[in-house]
Amino acid sequence: MTVTAPKGFRASGVAAGLKTSGNADVALVVNDGPDYTAAAVFTGNRVKAAPVLWSQQVLKGGIVRAVILNSGGANACTGTQGFRDTHATAEHTASVLRTTGSKPMMIGAGDVAVCSTGLIGELLPMDKLLPGVNAAAKALAADGGPKAAEAIMTTDTVAKNAVAQRLGWSVGGIAKGAGMLAPALATMLVVITTDASADNETLDTALREATRLTFDRIDADGCMSTNDTVILLASGASNRQPTLEELTAAVTEVCHDLAQQLIGDAEGATKHIAIEVAGAASEADAVQVGRTVANNNLVKTALFGNDPNWGRILAAVGTTSAAFEPDRIDVAINGVWVCKGGAAAEDRSKVDLSGRDVQITVNLREGEMNATIWTTDLSHAYVHENSAYSS
Amino acid sequence: MTVTAPKGFRASGVAAGLKTSGNADVALVVNDGPDYTAAAVFTGNRVKAAPVLWSQQVLKGGIVRAVILNSGGANACTGTQGFRDTHATAEHTASVLRTTGSKPMMIGAGDVAVCSTGLIGELLPMDKLLPGVNAAAKALAADGGPKAAEAIMTTDTVAKNAVAQRLGWSVGGIAKGAGMLAPALATMLVVITTDASADNETLDTALREATRLTFDRIDADGCMSTNDTVILLASGASNRQPTLEELTAAVTEVCHDLAQQLIGDAEGATKHIAIEVAGAASEADAVQVGRTVANNNLVKTALFGNDPNWGRILAAVGTTSAAFEPDRIDVAINGVWVCKGGAAAEDRSKVDLSGRDVQITVNLREGEMNATIWTTDLSHAYVHENSAYSS
Repeated sequence: MTVTAPKGFRASGVAAGLKTSGNADVALVVNDGPDYTAAAVFTGNRVKAAPVLWSQQVLKGGIVRAVILNSGGANACTGTQGFRDTHATAEHTASVLRTTGSKPMMIGAGDVAVCSTGLIGELLPMDKLLPGVNAAAKALAADGGPKAAEAIMTTDTVAKNAVAQRLGWSVGGIAKGAGMLAPALATMLVVITTDASADNETLDTALREATRLTFDRIDADGCMSTNDTVILLASGASNRQPTLEELTAAVTEVCHDLAQQLIGDAEGATKHIAIEVAGAASEADAVQVGRTVANNNLVKTALFGNDPNWGRILAAVGTTSAAFEPDRIDVAINGVWVCKGGAAAEDRSKVDLSGRDVQITVNLREGEMNATIWTTDLSHAYVHENSAYSS
Repeated sequence: MTVTAPKGFRASGVAAGLKTSGNADVALVVNDGPDYTAAAVFTGNRVKAAPVLWSQQVLKGGIVRAVILNSGGANACTGTQGFRDTHATAEHTASVLRTTGSKPMMIGAGDVAVCSTGLIGELLPMDKLLPGVNAAAKALAADGGPKAAEAIMTTDTVAKNAVAQRLGWSVGGIAKGAGMLAPALATMLVVITTDASADNETLDTALREATRLTFDRIDADGCMSTNDTVILLASGASNRQPTLEELTAAVTEVCHDLAQQLIGDAEGATKHIAIEVAGAASEADAVQVGRTVANNNLVKTALFGNDPNWGRILAAVGTTSAAFEPDRIDVAINGVWVCKGGAAAEDRSKVDLSGRDVQITVNLREGEMNATIWTTDLSHAYVHENSAYSS
């Protein structure tokens, strides 16, 4: 059910005192091989946290033996000292793994990816983090995935694990975050493991296709974190070499599962909203329209108020550059076609918005392409959580 | 202090029963000449309300004798019937003005601009609106501007009037809306009058420059209405012909005054926030960065919570395509430089956010250009008002 489901991985999660709550806050995932291939995608934000800048370099090296993760501090906007701290964390992790436990590893700092999440703009308490790394290394276990998932939680209410089982091999994953919605920009950290054998290029292709259709299509408030990281590690311990298509399907399955868990746990949300855009001239048009509707505060507040206000949906569509004619658009909310040809159709009072799940369909009537974006409503709890976080 | 301050204009506002509250909901502004030149800017939303489509055609004719405005219904997303209703409203207004009062006018429907504001997706009750036009025509008065300003209010808490006095001529204006923040996309309707003499091209140039620096730089929630209209009428009744620069300055003064009234009255806002972007490589960069910060829900909720969370500001800047280096950006909040060179600087506890006015300065350190965007915070009241509007 988690990153230690595939063979060849150990993981752990420990409390190092970074979180004032005393909950676990340092996680470690180790690849015991025999392969150490990897791929990753990082935030598109141009203001990147120190661990992102570091891990981008590590991935270029082509080998990742371990991922060290901390909650309780994002180490973003922390200048050169922040980068030195990330470097020191990787060095320390490598050093400890070379000397700890029954399986000393041949590993250098350049083989250690680093992920951080928490408040932006403050340096990490290294006097707590480095001892935490020691503890995490000692706690490494072949069933340690769930503990790692717990240690990366910030405002998550539940730990997030997923697995895709195949004949003789599998893909597992852990995640934290709330789909760009939680405080401090809801860093999304995801570690995915597989015991399949695959080279870096194959992993990269599979991961990019999977994230394009999953994490890139959840969007809670349009805010992009400085720390988002999705990293895929392959151990080859299954001695199986699936095709690219097989691997992509399994990685996508895990990413989809984790993405839905993220949006389902989005802070302050009372609705789990799927916005399907059909009849688009291109997939890019469908994604643009879906994302624009998903990010519209007036649509999101209306849904919080159980109000099937399709006019706000049309007005949001109108701000895009997608191909459409205003007088051809159809809109359904939970199966009721409240708008046909850009004007009122079925009685909006027929729409039942009392449940948590909301399905919006926008048919642009321009072509055959479609895409679905998942999002949440904009609630009092969102405002409360996000106005009270760092103070 | 209003649209009837310049010579050559009459206005009125009456209650026609479009609003369930019984408040005034039909306004009329008439240009008695001798000139009837005009210019207008309309919403950039591709889903345009019927009155916008109609008024765009009227403006192409080059003569505007009257503007008929209603609150209590946007007449947007109402299909062909909605357009027929707008056309009928203009025909009726022209007909009534040809036959009413001491000054019968030579006027056709093609000389009548129409503006509507309220809920999207419902047809206007023409059986109430057309008698309201009769009443508005009868009530026209040389001091009727304030009544017109009242009749176009929706969720506005105060009527909005402004004037710029010059030697021998003036510019006056009325406005409604809440800077894209109020329910149903906060249609912004603005009528500006002047007794200066100016041809259509001069008016158009002056109005576009004025709106570019005022209405285009307020942004409460990034949502763009289907009905936004700013219309400028010139009567020439002063017999003065200011230069383009003089006219532009006076129109800009009135637009700035009204724009600040709009953002100051934005629904549910507890903060009036100015985001100044300095040191930009271009004005477009400065506007893009300011607008992106203004639209960021995490920045807006932080300010609602009196939290000087500069990390969220940097993260928002990072999502733009403006020229900048992350490690060169400086940020000040209410005069305290909490971020220098992309990292923490002065103690954030020095920032006093207890007042309503907030001044954020982002220095990109790339060039000499700057721009200021005005916005509001994201509060519980915003969520409440916008989740409870149409239901």
